[in-house]
Amino acid sequence: MENEIKRIDRKLEFQGTILDFYTDYMQMPDGKVVKWDFVAHRKGAAAVVPVMEDGTILMVHQYRNALDRMTIEIPAGARDDVCEDTKICAARELEEETGYRPGRMDFLITLKSAVAYNNEFIDVYVARDLQPGTQHLDRYEFIELEVLPLETLCTRIYAGEIQDAKTVAAIMAYKNKYESAGS
Amino acid sequence: MENEIKRIDRKLEFQGTILDFYTDYMQMPDGKVVKWDFVAHRKGAAAVVPVMEDGTILMVHQYRNALDRMTIEIPAGARDDVCEDTKICAARELEEETGYRPGRMDFLITLKSAVAYNNEFIDVYVARDLQPGTQHLDRYEFIELEVLPLETLCTRIYAGEIQDAKTVAAIMAYKNKYESAGS
Repeated sequence: MENEIKRIDRKLEFQGTILDFYTDYMQMPDGKVVKWDFVAHRKGAAAVVPVMEDGTILMVHQYRNALDRMTIEIPAGARDDVCEDTKICAARELEEETGYRPGRMDFLITLKSAVAYNNEFIDVYVARDLQPGTQHLDRYEFIELEVLPLETLCTRIYAGEIQDAKTVAAIMAYKNKYESAGS
Repeated sequence: MENEIKRIDRKLEFQGTILDFYTDYMQMPDGKVVKWDFVAHRKGAAAVVPVMEDGTILMVHQYRNALDRMTIEIPAGARDDVCEDTKICAARELEEETGYRPGRMDFLITLKSAVAYNNEFIDVYVARDLQPGTQHLDRYEFIELEVLPLETLCTRIYAGEIQDAKTVAAIMAYKNKYESAGS
């Protein structure tokens, strides 16, 4: 089926800070060429579900300009460069944003943020055996921490209070994998 | 906390087919102005978890140019316009992509695709009492259908074979809400 639609050109329209915007010229099976948007994320990203000793989850509150409001999310961030291992990136972002260092990191899921037009991926890990350290945020990063029970997070997701796709996918995938039997 | 970072300008850099790319000029608490990418999705979207009578889920396979490969996803699509009710959009996309008309639609979750730079939202519904009809794809839409058990979908998500964020979030949220007790 891949052969039915063919990309015949990709033109860079604008180079952003972390994203590049392209127009893809797609040839359809009838020969007609149409334009599709393509957003390239330069680095890829990692995220982490940080599980405290009592089973509660460490979440971050931050202002998100794209939504013009605060969000509740799992810790996450872009890789320093395309060669950075996502497990190392996830542990680094966890420590930078929360001050906690993970004793153990297990792979949970990989996400593609918006497959219709974007190539960004996010590898999600579960962090355990958390050791408190020192939060060291980026110069222009402003984050508040909150520890919440898993059931509260699920309730808030179904209530529409938590909508960030990586957070919803990660929390629900974590619950199904590790907590369903006990719920 | 919202007041610590302030957007002082938003400049349209490129107008795509469904996305607009902006540079946001953000004033930091120390007065310095930095540039952030902002991608505006013009329409918003809806998606649907279509549940067959036997509990299996109706999935769509399609070629995704942004990833250069086929994906397995739940049916979804952009709204016809910003006034379209997402429940109507979800039912419409379900019928267009699969030929099935839902007898019942229940709201499941709302997702924001990529909160760091994108304002796209996706309202996700659960469709039941599906009545077979006629698939009527858009002219340049090529989709194959597959019905899969929920457990198979979860296994394939954890194996990294299904990565689309809306699909992972929706399937996991559906399982937690409706199937956990019986699993």
